[in-house]
Amino acid sequence: MEPSEDVRVTVIGLNARGAALARVIASRGVAVTVWDDAEVSPIEGVVRVDSVRGAFTGVSLVLLCVDEYDSAERILGQAEPYITGTDVVNVTSGTSTRAEELAAWVHSRGGHYLDGALMAHPEHVGKPETVLVYSGSLEVFERHEPSLKLLGGATYLGEAPGAAALYDVAMLNFAWATLIGFLQSVVLLGTARIRAGTVTPLLTHWLSTTVTDVIDDYARQVDERHYPGDEEWLELDAPLMDHLLEATRARGLDTALPELIKSLTVQGIDAGHGRNSFASLAEILRGRSNGPS
Amino acid sequence: MEPSEDVRVTVIGLNARGAALARVIASRGVAVTVWDDAEVSPIEGVVRVDSVRGAFTGVSLVLLCVDEYDSAERILGQAEPYITGTDVVNVTSGTSTRAEELAAWVHSRGGHYLDGALMAHPEHVGKPETVLVYSGSLEVFERHEPSLKLLGGATYLGEAPGAAALYDVAMLNFAWATLIGFLQSVVLLGTARIRAGTVTPLLTHWLSTTVTDVIDDYARQVDERHYPGDEEWLELDAPLMDHLLEATRARGLDTALPELIKSLTVQGIDAGHGRNSFASLAEILRGRSNGPS
Repeated sequence: MEPSEDVRVTVIGLNARGAALARVIASRGVAVTVWDDAEVSPIEGVVRVDSVRGAFTGVSLVLLCVDEYDSAERILGQAEPYITGTDVVNVTSGTSTRAEELAAWVHSRGGHYLDGALMAHPEHVGKPETVLVYSGSLEVFERHEPSLKLLGGATYLGEAPGAAALYDVAMLNFAWATLIGFLQSVVLLGTARIRAGTVTPLLTHWLSTTVTDVIDDYARQVDERHYPGDEEWLELDAPLMDHLLEATRARGLDTALPELIKSLTVQGIDAGHGRNSFASLAEILRGRSNGPS
Repeated sequence: MEPSEDVRVTVIGLNARGAALARVIASRGVAVTVWDDAEVSPIEGVVRVDSVRGAFTGVSLVLLCVDEYDSAERILGQAEPYITGTDVVNVTSGTSTRAEELAAWVHSRGGHYLDGALMAHPEHVGKPETVLVYSGSLEVFERHEPSLKLLGGATYLGEAPGAAALYDVAMLNFAWATLIGFLQSVVLLGTARIRAGTVTPLLTHWLSTTVTDVIDDYARQVDERHYPGDEEWLELDAPLMDHLLEATRARGLDTALPELIKSLTVQGIDAGHGRNSFASLAEILRGRSNGPS
């Protein structure tokens, strides 16, 4: 579905990402207005205004993409007289707490707030495979979905305004864990004079086939809080983790990651998940937030 | 390249994986003999012998695939009189130390030893995308590469007989780290009532595109021990890790993984890698094995 012809979008913040957002939306025939208090180069096909008032007047959607939350709050503060009835989508990076505070403030002034997270370099904006997630006002999401879809994939994560920012940090956590795992594995293999370049194609192939299939399966298990150990289970994994620990220790490498893996598994077994799949460690990771679903 | 017509392979051990190996090789027209001391069902097109002597006589290659290293050692012990001049490929799962000991023993008896690791379910044996790695005698690997390639991809990891087993455990380490990262991320998102099923397609897509590209880049950096922080660097990552830790702690979740990520990064910054990429953590993971390359 294309945005309807009377849609007008204002983009506030013309850093590299903001400029990419404005450029992509304008290139698809939507009327775009931009505003930034810094000096920036003009963008073809885009009207530039020089006041917050101009940025908020007669537009369907205000898209905020500035460098930090302090700026986003300051700009919305200046725009206070014009916020009633305005749909604001904020893709400025920040914590979920800040997103929740800002959402509450916008709502208290009669505006509608949707938070977004854009995990991509500016040159990827506008590609269907680029991931953007949103949370907050469902009304705003549904009203502007055609425009938001011009920017990339648009996934709505629910009414909690902090969810999109939480997704941002959860995605980073996933990447960091995977990358530390990769580095530990190639350092371990390096002790047998195996180059990272030799094994990486095997490891990444395995990651995007077998490991991805396992992840899909675990997602279902976590949602159901039911972890059948049909193919692998914690008591089967534990001795293999001892092999990993022995090999790591014997070669004088840092053992923190193998120890973490083993320690979580032992906690899982102690909690009665010995015959459950590795996904049952989700129950340990839930920590003191744990309880019946 | 197909195996030449006079190749004869013996497969010892007819568990599910061993039987799959025998079946796949025989199905490609290679003469296969099998031996197992347990009762097993017959395999079409395969000659079954009932003694170790029969298993080792007049064959080009003996492929060992039993359930544990103790059995592999016992069988080779029985075969001692026939080992001189025999090529043995052992894909029994075990530690790299056991592989090294067995290789030394076979060599001392005049045989040639190649160790292998098969990370796949039996039904995947014979598919080109199935990963098998080998290490030990290069001569054996080159002599039998056409037969080994019938089983799946065949990557030679070097002369150290323990390397293939080390790869096995390194691959598991990579999977466990990735899976714990995944579980931590979905548990974190679960606190905002986001279902794992909603975000998993986004996470796995990201894993097999962006994260895989980063891994390819890091492999080069680790091999060169040079970690340019052009796009991201440890001092840029550290405050985002604090967001992750805060979010995790505030929701009462287990903080061990975020703490490990942050702690390694702090160690990296302290060691002078603040402006280097995240891949420079390889230098920390090298631990006391560290030193000039």
